[in-house]
Amino acid sequence: MKTLVDRVRAGEDVEELRQVAQAERVSVELVAAGVAAGTIVVPRNRHSQARPTGIGAGLRTKVNANLGTSPRFDSTAEELTKLRFALEAGADTVMDLSTGAGMDETRRALRQACPVPLGTVPIYQAAIEAAQGDGSIADMPVAALFEVIERHATDGVDFVTVHCGVTRAAVAHLQRQSRICDIVSRGGAFLARWMLANDAENPLYEHYDRLLDTARRYDLTLSLGDGLRPGCLADATDRAQVHETVVLGDLVDAAREAGVQAMVEGPGHVPMDQIEANVVLQKRLCGGAPFYVLGPLVTDVAPGYDHITGAIGGALCAAAGADFLCYVTPAEHIALPTPLDVHEGVVAARIAAHAADLVKGVPGAREWDEEMSRARRALDWERQAALALDPERVRKLRQERGAVSVESCSMCGEYCPMREQWLRPPTGKGKPSS
Amino acid sequence: MKTLVDRVRAGEDVEELRQVAQAERVSVELVAAGVAAGTIVVPRNRHSQARPTGIGAGLRTKVNANLGTSPRFDSTAEELTKLRFALEAGADTVMDLSTGAGMDETRRALRQACPVPLGTVPIYQAAIEAAQGDGSIADMPVAALFEVIERHATDGVDFVTVHCGVTRAAVAHLQRQSRICDIVSRGGAFLARWMLANDAENPLYEHYDRLLDTARRYDLTLSLGDGLRPGCLADATDRAQVHETVVLGDLVDAAREAGVQAMVEGPGHVPMDQIEANVVLQKRLCGGAPFYVLGPLVTDVAPGYDHITGAIGGALCAAAGADFLCYVTPAEHIALPTPLDVHEGVVAARIAAHAADLVKGVPGAREWDEEMSRARRALDWERQAALALDPERVRKLRQERGAVSVESCSMCGEYCPMREQWLRPPTGKGKPSS
Repeated sequence: MKTLVDRVRAGEDVEELRQVAQAERVSVELVAAGVAAGTIVVPRNRHSQARPTGIGAGLRTKVNANLGTSPRFDSTAEELTKLRFALEAGADTVMDLSTGAGMDETRRALRQACPVPLGTVPIYQAAIEAAQGDGSIADMPVAALFEVIERHATDGVDFVTVHCGVTRAAVAHLQRQSRICDIVSRGGAFLARWMLANDAENPLYEHYDRLLDTARRYDLTLSLGDGLRPGCLADATDRAQVHETVVLGDLVDAAREAGVQAMVEGPGHVPMDQIEANVVLQKRLCGGAPFYVLGPLVTDVAPGYDHITGAIGGALCAAAGADFLCYVTPAEHIALPTPLDVHEGVVAARIAAHAADLVKGVPGAREWDEEMSRARRALDWERQAALALDPERVRKLRQERGAVSVESCSMCGEYCPMREQWLRPPTGKGKPSS
Repeated sequence: MKTLVDRVRAGEDVEELRQVAQAERVSVELVAAGVAAGTIVVPRNRHSQARPTGIGAGLRTKVNANLGTSPRFDSTAEELTKLRFALEAGADTVMDLSTGAGMDETRRALRQACPVPLGTVPIYQAAIEAAQGDGSIADMPVAALFEVIERHATDGVDFVTVHCGVTRAAVAHLQRQSRICDIVSRGGAFLARWMLANDAENPLYEHYDRLLDTARRYDLTLSLGDGLRPGCLADATDRAQVHETVVLGDLVDAAREAGVQAMVEGPGHVPMDQIEANVVLQKRLCGGAPFYVLGPLVTDVAPGYDHITGAIGGALCAAAGADFLCYVTPAEHIALPTPLDVHEGVVAARIAAHAADLVKGVPGAREWDEEMSRARRALDWERQAALALDPERVRKLRQERGAVSVESCSMCGEYCPMREQWLRPPTGKGKPSS
């Protein structure tokens, strides 16, 4: 069965690409060329009805919201509420990272309710199922891991994070060098524990062909995970991380040869002056594959506000060429997020993405800001709210404290500079000239 | 009477500088050299007891919180509450931008309660006093403007924003060129209206010597305001703005010759790819004077979240060399901020400042992040909270949703990667090796 890439490469007229091109205000040829070359992905399981969404070079920077239960908070209903909050806030994609009881049920419920591409991290479920009862993660049979991947694919998941680059050689770097935070990726940690305990290679690396075969059958997009991403600034851009990226570059090539779409995940915690280098490296080592980053967080000291820390890093990273920002919520490093945290996280990541799109020259980006600025100049408050990234927030703030008169806001009141018409010559002493 | 600069230039042992050096973990010689050259300011009215605070090259990036009444919200008590919130959140300086009834009372109350440097914008009060009753801003006598500056200085204000660079030539640029948002600085707007209505030069420019004389008498630091700062991305870095910066460069030189401390204010709304250029320009044109920026905001479309938009721009700007970030609150463009908005604004700006300090090589910055990362690795939650930029927020979040056990948080629970001890060789199948 042909994958999306096969169809594009065969020159077929692919409806999904036309939808992507229309949404992005670019030509379908640009999208097709990107998909064929692997610099754009359109993650869509062949059993999925998800909105065709392009991620990659020349397109609007996308934002993902991570949802999912945890051992303590395992309510599917709560995750469905978070899904609604994420979509209302404007998330382009959603990932279900559930680790609580009833993972199959939660994933299927989210899939049914989710109109945008849905991703998962199958290793979580495989490792936790192995660990349940008297078992341990190290007892996970390789077949069980691939069975879980297949289960997710059957459920119509559009993309899966697979930490194929956590190889024995990469872990050896960790063991030789000094890191403060070692491994902070849960998937990377599960795999490393399994590998060390079994004295064996990463099954997702060793059996990568099998993974590609599954991906082809469902037209599943691979998101090559960064299991060794830095968990603090001091660990950023070290040999373990860079080694993993080098490995992922090979795996991107193999995916492309197999007609499977692949993107590459990136850090993490990175100081501002290393962010551009991380993007340049990933783009060069991975043949321009779409770069999907978590944050990056530009300081370690702001738990409770990591949506802001991540927005700073995300904006810098996207401006340097990253294509896809995974949000970070205010609860990061402390707790599973609430629905409100999800909202705040999506908005912060969208601000970062848009700030970058303005300087990437993404079609329509500058026009949006100019329209808002004209509405501001005209003191047209309803238009300002309508154009705002979060219209409801603007209406609420203005209702609560803002409205002084039709013309101005409660910051300056009658002294609002926007009431003046400076560019026209003055017609009378002290009076606005309009 | 000698100013601080005079004393430093005379080689005196200045106690304030020793306090600054100690707080910054730098040598007193570095601070003295910066103050003498004008690349560092220590704003302190000779009648003020404010904590000596250094702003400029080689020092920690500072954060200012704007407070003050408006015509609609004119409660001094409310502004005192905001002052408390600003200080608790870690503001380094505070400005009183009051425009509501009782400006003298509000300023004096804030001064009395404020242990950090306090700034004001005297043109607000002068213009509003002129406009009260039947008058208009254009009726403001020049003497009244200088009387208000003197009144603020007598009250012990440490620095004043003076929009001396809004000259007739600069305003002519505005009239010739097309801007979407014209003038968005209130002080700039007041002055431009006065100048156009009276067909006269900016009195703060024309009588700059008189301003320097007042500044010398009180040892008042001048913050040379950017009355023509861009109010939207489309207006950024235009001829009017750059012309004003050129003028301010001359005025910095004159202040230095007079032994008066001066810093320079900057934008505003600036796309990410123009931020570094703005810093380079200001530093070059103004002889390395400390650069005090508002934001900058990297998109116009996120009202309700401009603390985040400003954190992105502020981090970039400070990393490029800006020394002093004026916070932006979530209420910006919509309303006068609440105490909670003030808190959120200060924290967001501090995150930006610290992210930049990490890459500026400010002493102690990296060590803070490393300590936090070690506490995180050790799952030492009380230490993480204590080291956090906002400890109370961390404790509150953890209490509400975080705590699963002493060891982990509610995101991963028992699957927390931090529970593993990766760098030690595994001692048993599937068991953590510690």
